[in-house]
Amino acid sequence: MDRLQAIERLFAPRSVAIVGASRTIGKWGFTFALHLTQGGYKGAVYPVNPAGGRLLDHKIYRSLEELPGPVDLAFILIPPEQVAGAVKECGRIGVPVAVVITAGFKEIGAEGRAMELEVVQAAEEAGVALVGPNCAGVTSPEPMRLYCMMQPTFPPAGGIAIVSQSGNLIGSIQHMLWKQDLGVSRSVSVGNQALLQVEDFLEYLITDDKTRVVVTYIEGVSSGPRFMDVARRLCRVKPLLVIKGGQTESGVRAAKSHTGAIAGSGAVFQALCRQVGAILVDDVEDMLDTAVALMAQPLPRGNRVGIVANGGGWGVLIADACVKAGLNVVELPEEVLSALDERLPAWWNRQNPVDLVAGMSRGAFFKSMEILLRAEVIDSLIALGFGYAHGNAHVFDGLTDEDLPGVSEYKAGTLYSDQRGMKFVLDLIRDYKKPVLLSSEFIVGADRDRNEPVLTLRKQNLLIYPSSRRTAQVLARLTRYGAWRMAQEA
Amino acid sequence: MDRLQAIERLFAPRSVAIVGASRTIGKWGFTFALHLTQGGYKGAVYPVNPAGGRLLDHKIYRSLEELPGPVDLAFILIPPEQVAGAVKECGRIGVPVAVVITAGFKEIGAEGRAMELEVVQAAEEAGVALVGPNCAGVTSPEPMRLYCMMQPTFPPAGGIAIVSQSGNLIGSIQHMLWKQDLGVSRSVSVGNQALLQVEDFLEYLITDDKTRVVVTYIEGVSSGPRFMDVARRLCRVKPLLVIKGGQTESGVRAAKSHTGAIAGSGAVFQALCRQVGAILVDDVEDMLDTAVALMAQPLPRGNRVGIVANGGGWGVLIADACVKAGLNVVELPEEVLSALDERLPAWWNRQNPVDLVAGMSRGAFFKSMEILLRAEVIDSLIALGFGYAHGNAHVFDGLTDEDLPGVSEYKAGTLYSDQRGMKFVLDLIRDYKKPVLLSSEFIVGADRDRNEPVLTLRKQNLLIYPSSRRTAQVLARLTRYGAWRMAQEA
Repeated sequence: MDRLQAIERLFAPRSVAIVGASRTIGKWGFTFALHLTQGGYKGAVYPVNPAGGRLLDHKIYRSLEELPGPVDLAFILIPPEQVAGAVKECGRIGVPVAVVITAGFKEIGAEGRAMELEVVQAAEEAGVALVGPNCAGVTSPEPMRLYCMMQPTFPPAGGIAIVSQSGNLIGSIQHMLWKQDLGVSRSVSVGNQALLQVEDFLEYLITDDKTRVVVTYIEGVSSGPRFMDVARRLCRVKPLLVIKGGQTESGVRAAKSHTGAIAGSGAVFQALCRQVGAILVDDVEDMLDTAVALMAQPLPRGNRVGIVANGGGWGVLIADACVKAGLNVVELPEEVLSALDERLPAWWNRQNPVDLVAGMSRGAFFKSMEILLRAEVIDSLIALGFGYAHGNAHVFDGLTDEDLPGVSEYKAGTLYSDQRGMKFVLDLIRDYKKPVLLSSEFIVGADRDRNEPVLTLRKQNLLIYPSSRRTAQVLARLTRYGAWRMAQEA
Repeated sequence: MDRLQAIERLFAPRSVAIVGASRTIGKWGFTFALHLTQGGYKGAVYPVNPAGGRLLDHKIYRSLEELPGPVDLAFILIPPEQVAGAVKECGRIGVPVAVVITAGFKEIGAEGRAMELEVVQAAEEAGVALVGPNCAGVTSPEPMRLYCMMQPTFPPAGGIAIVSQSGNLIGSIQHMLWKQDLGVSRSVSVGNQALLQVEDFLEYLITDDKTRVVVTYIEGVSSGPRFMDVARRLCRVKPLLVIKGGQTESGVRAAKSHTGAIAGSGAVFQALCRQVGAILVDDVEDMLDTAVALMAQPLPRGNRVGIVANGGGWGVLIADACVKAGLNVVELPEEVLSALDERLPAWWNRQNPVDLVAGMSRGAFFKSMEILLRAEVIDSLIALGFGYAHGNAHVFDGLTDEDLPGVSEYKAGTLYSDQRGMKFVLDLIRDYKKPVLLSSEFIVGADRDRNEPVLTLRKQNLLIYPSSRRTAQVLARLTRYGAWRMAQEA
């Protein structure tokens, strides 16, 4: 079985063994079994511990040899000096791939390095593909609901794959996606990469049909040319977002004690990413903002952005943010101005951003969006203020038609226009094949979960950004990647 | 009554007239009366409209002259050509201050400019202070619960004041604060600033004891020297955060059609802010992140930051982000390392960020925070991963002590450690008088409203940031302002 076949098995195991299972709450040997179970894993679960007994609803087997059926995937959570032996045993009973969670190898120095070498030799001799050691586990919602990680995060199935040199960051990213009902295809914490490496997983993801966007956290790469080759091939078919840990001296020092990676210079890595088409982002928030947008949006064919604002400051700030991000807040040609003139009152501002001041109808707002999107001169659109009616509906709380004749009809009407607006955005993206980004304050805070249109859009991977900077930067990243893809196809 | 006295009355009116009140849902004359009422205004409300009748629970008076008692504040929402007359009437019955919501003045050209001049003359002759025209209203929770703005946002009383050339941005900022239970002292939308200007409000806020932090959105200032003078005096006693709309050519163009301001260059304004101690931020999100931190945190006395990470990538990313933001991720001297050695297992990473890898006890985490904060070499602290136990508690959902002996005790124990951690942070800030910023993924998404410790901290104005960039930039802004204050006091 080659590496890619082993990875395929890793993400679709029909049975999982937990070597070093424990009945003690709080121990990793307990936690992994718990997460696997609570995640709803569909295959057979085999906890293994010489002590035997039961764990959750599973029988604990005393050794791998005792297991009643074949094992596709073994998680190994026993002390480092016992890991090589367990890997050999995996080989004997035909386990194709093992994830070694145990730490205390290369990252702790010479002694650990020697033990890691021993584990690798055991794996190679036994024909077992190895993830880790010193890693946080794996997620693969389809086909088996495999959630087997340190962190109890259970995002639904989706199109985003995560490959990370930090287990905690996978936990963070999965948590942030999950809590917004956004999905994951595969996650893997690569740990010390003793055998399987970031590049192997990226290569697998090129043809993985569950994955549409790949995000990766990297502190260092062991082979620059291989990374570049794989990244370039990946970027030709789906976007790759990279967070590079260790871009400054302090970050590099921290990375060295974390994964032992000799982190390269930030500037060199940036140039490298640009060359292969990868999208470099600074932190988890920027990564998610961008990854989710890439799930929903077509790539812009140029950097000319149209903006529709619902009055005042936001339009100005978005225009500033777009220019700073390298986008062109294009001046509108006469034919577009005329088309807008026909739909808008005489006093509209006749420029981009189109500023539909407070009080203008939602119909005019939607119409302006469509006129801009239809224009040849516009490659992408930013619309402000979405979620308005739902965000403000609370003001009618406690008022009945008796107190205020017509209030229920009025409220229903505005809420309907919000719902219609959300559907309209989805239709626009589909019909004009240009990205439409939304920016608004109405997703901040508790009430967003009562804001149905916001939830409707989110289920379609359309986020609303509460920041002009974030909106503009996401669009700029889509635009740069779109330009790279066009250059590759030319 | 001078300008400052008029502003004082504006924020504490014992009675409010709505000139141009309407019974039609959706009209501004209705909306302002509704918001005033739903906001729980404690004084007398006098809707005024020649048609008479009733509006919500109020009698509509046919004219200002008919009102049964004195009026401290009049909102004017009638067509522009009638505004001067209404202002004169305000003067006749002794109204000291009027807020003109009506648009269609200076911002629409020559004809509007003439009408605006007429309104100003009327106000000056009648001795009425004027806010607006073309503005969105006023908020002042204390002492009268005055919420009288276009946008239905009702933040609680708090220490943040908002002065804005964009009414919509006030609505956004108030919405974002409100939905996180964060409070406002005063908000005012200055509109065309025909009479009262941004600088007048900033001057008032210098001595307003309800206000601890001032945020302002500005597109242009009418008098540079006055702005600098007032801003400098304000910054000596409380922080001033500025968003400057119109920093690029596109932004300036948008601003020109918005407020008619001739926006200055971004670089010039940036230098000006630095000189007077104002904190320039790019967007609403950065502004709120920073304003709320300034409410809770002491100012750092230098740029040396300590970091405590709970494993891996976040520590590396925060270190990078701090350096990029101009902070010093200081190397720890031997005595601090020794103090940490005593509390941490032998294999800790012995550097800053202190990386407490997964599985280390919460006690060690808290102890490390205190050791760093106590060190002379540390001016501020960033701690990662807060809200962990509550963020992850769901994994035990559905498990009883019968299924899993000891689970309820274990769960209660981890939740308690989270609660204790939150209290500990508040104590640390109080005892060591150094800022402690928190960064974590556990505030993202719906569950945060079940995350009690997160809510507890938020009520104390302690936000948890889901982004390393945002965390570092907030701390860098506090650090720069702290340095400016120290230079002023030297």
